Amino acid sequence: MTEARNDLLLRALLREPTPRTPVWLMRQAGRYLPEYRATRARAGSFHALCTTPDYACEVTLQPLRRFPLDAAILFSDILMLPQAMGLKVEFESGEGPRIAQPVRTAADAARLPVPDPEAELRPVMDAVRLIRRELNGRVPLIGFAGSPWTVATYMVEGGTSKSFSVIKGMAYAEPAALEALLDRLTRATVLYLNAQIAAGAQAVMLFDTWGGILSPDLYRRYSLAPMTAVIAGLVRERDGERVPVILFTKNGGAWLEDQAASGADALGIDWTTDLGRARTQVGARVALQGNLDPCALYAPAATIRMLVERALKSYGAGPGHVFNLGHGILPDVNPDHVAALVAAVHELSAHA
Amino acid sequence: MTEARNDLLLRALLREPTPRTPVWLMRQAGRYLPEYRATRARAGSFHALCTTPDYACEVTLQPLRRFPLDAAILFSDILMLPQAMGLKVEFESGEGPRIAQPVRTAADAARLPVPDPEAELRPVMDAVRLIRRELNGRVPLIGFAGSPWTVATYMVEGGTSKSFSVIKGMAYAEPAALEALLDRLTRATVLYLNAQIAAGAQAVMLFDTWGGILSPDLYRRYSLAPMTAVIAGLVRERDGERVPVILFTKNGGAWLEDQAASGADALGIDWTTDLGRARTQVGARVALQGNLDPCALYAPAATIRMLVERALKSYGAGPGHVFNLGHGILPDVNPDHVAALVAAVHELSAHA
Repeated sequence: MTEARNDLLLRALLREPTPRTPVWLMRQAGRYLPEYRATRARAGSFHALCTTPDYACEVTLQPLRRFPLDAAILFSDILMLPQAMGLKVEFESGEGPRIAQPVRTAADAARLPVPDPEAELRPVMDAVRLIRRELNGRVPLIGFAGSPWTVATYMVEGGTSKSFSVIKGMAYAEPAALEALLDRLTRATVLYLNAQIAAGAQAVMLFDTWGGILSPDLYRRYSLAPMTAVIAGLVRERDGERVPVILFTKNGGAWLEDQAASGADALGIDWTTDLGRARTQVGARVALQGNLDPCALYAPAATIRMLVERALKSYGAGPGHVFNLGHGILPDVNPDHVAALVAAVHELSAHA
Repeated sequence: MTEARNDLLLRALLREPTPRTPVWLMRQAGRYLPEYRATRARAGSFHALCTTPDYACEVTLQPLRRFPLDAAILFSDILMLPQAMGLKVEFESGEGPRIAQPVRTAADAARLPVPDPEAELRPVMDAVRLIRRELNGRVPLIGFAGSPWTVATYMVEGGTSKSFSVIKGMAYAEPAALEALLDRLTRATVLYLNAQIAAGAQAVMLFDTWGGILSPDLYRRYSLAPMTAVIAGLVRERDGERVPVILFTKNGGAWLEDQAASGADALGIDWTTDLGRARTQVGARVALQGNLDPCALYAPAATIRMLVERALKSYGAGPGHVFNLGHGILPDVNPDHVAALVAAVHELSAHA
């Protein structure tokens, strides 16, 4: 007997009715799990975790063994793509990733190759195939990439930043250089996500971690427009099934109506945005994914349950909600609290 | 002959008509000015700048000698208050301020004294008096404090933070401890700002740099409610003149309507929020201050002028706009670009 296929996530992302609200958690495979830390130690480095299909598959599956989650998400990093474009990324600096030779000019951007994912990102593609095989239809697998803007921030700043003054300075003073870089990244991201879909990803997500630091004008031009172009280039059906696309701009709650016109099937919502208000704004155009504060997982189980109840109520009746956090799980969260969260979603969202 | 008194700022903050839009810039006294860096070097430390009235007065006045700004703002730091409450703050760590013994429990909070500003913050009060004397009515002087929530983040985290997981963990798991701390800070902030007003501050501003990292519920409870309580405790008139209050929550654009009900006369708006949309939301209840992206100062003068024009147009006709950046000037900005910005506001906002 094969296990019943759980397609709640895919149905909710397409705004089809589901018997309960599906739930998965950003960074569900991560440092808060002791078994992740053990595998990470065995692998020797974060980079080895991402580039060894067996390890990537193992950590992708770990949270599913603990919690009845409704999706797996490929374990990888948004900086795999710039690495495949020839940039050297140092992940273990202790203060976020560092890029030694950042991109600063239009000439720098023009030199960047647009990689063939099955060649330069082969370990990621092999991981997708392996995870799909291991999942054996139990839950859907989500593939992902960073948004062109967000990946560009790392490539230009050389790491994370407080003010993003280098790339924003480029936006204001040398827009042609930034546009050249974003154009390359857009083309590379289309190929990368389509390769993930061909390898077995059943939904894909664009992580726009840093779109929210832009003014409305610059957001539309440098973050949303490239994401819209990526989405337009994606294969949206595979094996007769629609492949939903999730767009998530952290701190992007002011621009949900624009995001809803991007072609995405669903929008990620962070915890600073009221879920009910977000739903009113986007209407029936897109599903919504979110939006519990990751720090809510520090609360006792009873509080977590109350906050889950409030989020479900805020979204309201009707289809199109995927429960998630508003950002990734923090590394010092107690896994028992994650269990309490997932159990509360199962119980409280089930239709009577 | 004494110079004509420029009260454009005070009138605009109270939504009275002005012949042009007043302009000042957050952190206008700062590292981007070579004369500031020279005074800072002479003082020996940032702390000495803040606690020596002559130095504080000198750097407060420096930008007014260069640019026709419509306000001076007291040179100080929001962490002067927790220092006066007994915490040791290390400003020169290279990665933002550090507090060696952070507040973590209700007992820690209960031990904090509520300082008498004329005793424990005397250098700040002396600086206010000195600056007023030196300004001699030329432009109004703005006093300020951090919001209780924002000051609490430093006191609890021990410095700045990426995820604010310690204080947010406290909010979710030990709300009574956080409330005790915020209660102390609210009382201390009322005394501190009232003392600044008594010493000569003609408007005061609450800087809520970190309210925007909260969920809507937690924002109202832990950031906005304490600010509302502070505002309710302020002396609003001195020498027959209204003392306007400005409330600024960075990344708080989703909650402008709540902020407009705080009792503040004006709201600070950051660059991620559309100024015209903000004005529609708050109506005639409050003035608005903002909101050019600080990184726009990297642009050439012609672009700066175009962005100023766009911001003025976005605010529209009618009173109640104070031109400012959406956050502090960045240290590597060219002072000539600041001159271009101020000139553009003068020229483009003047009524024909």
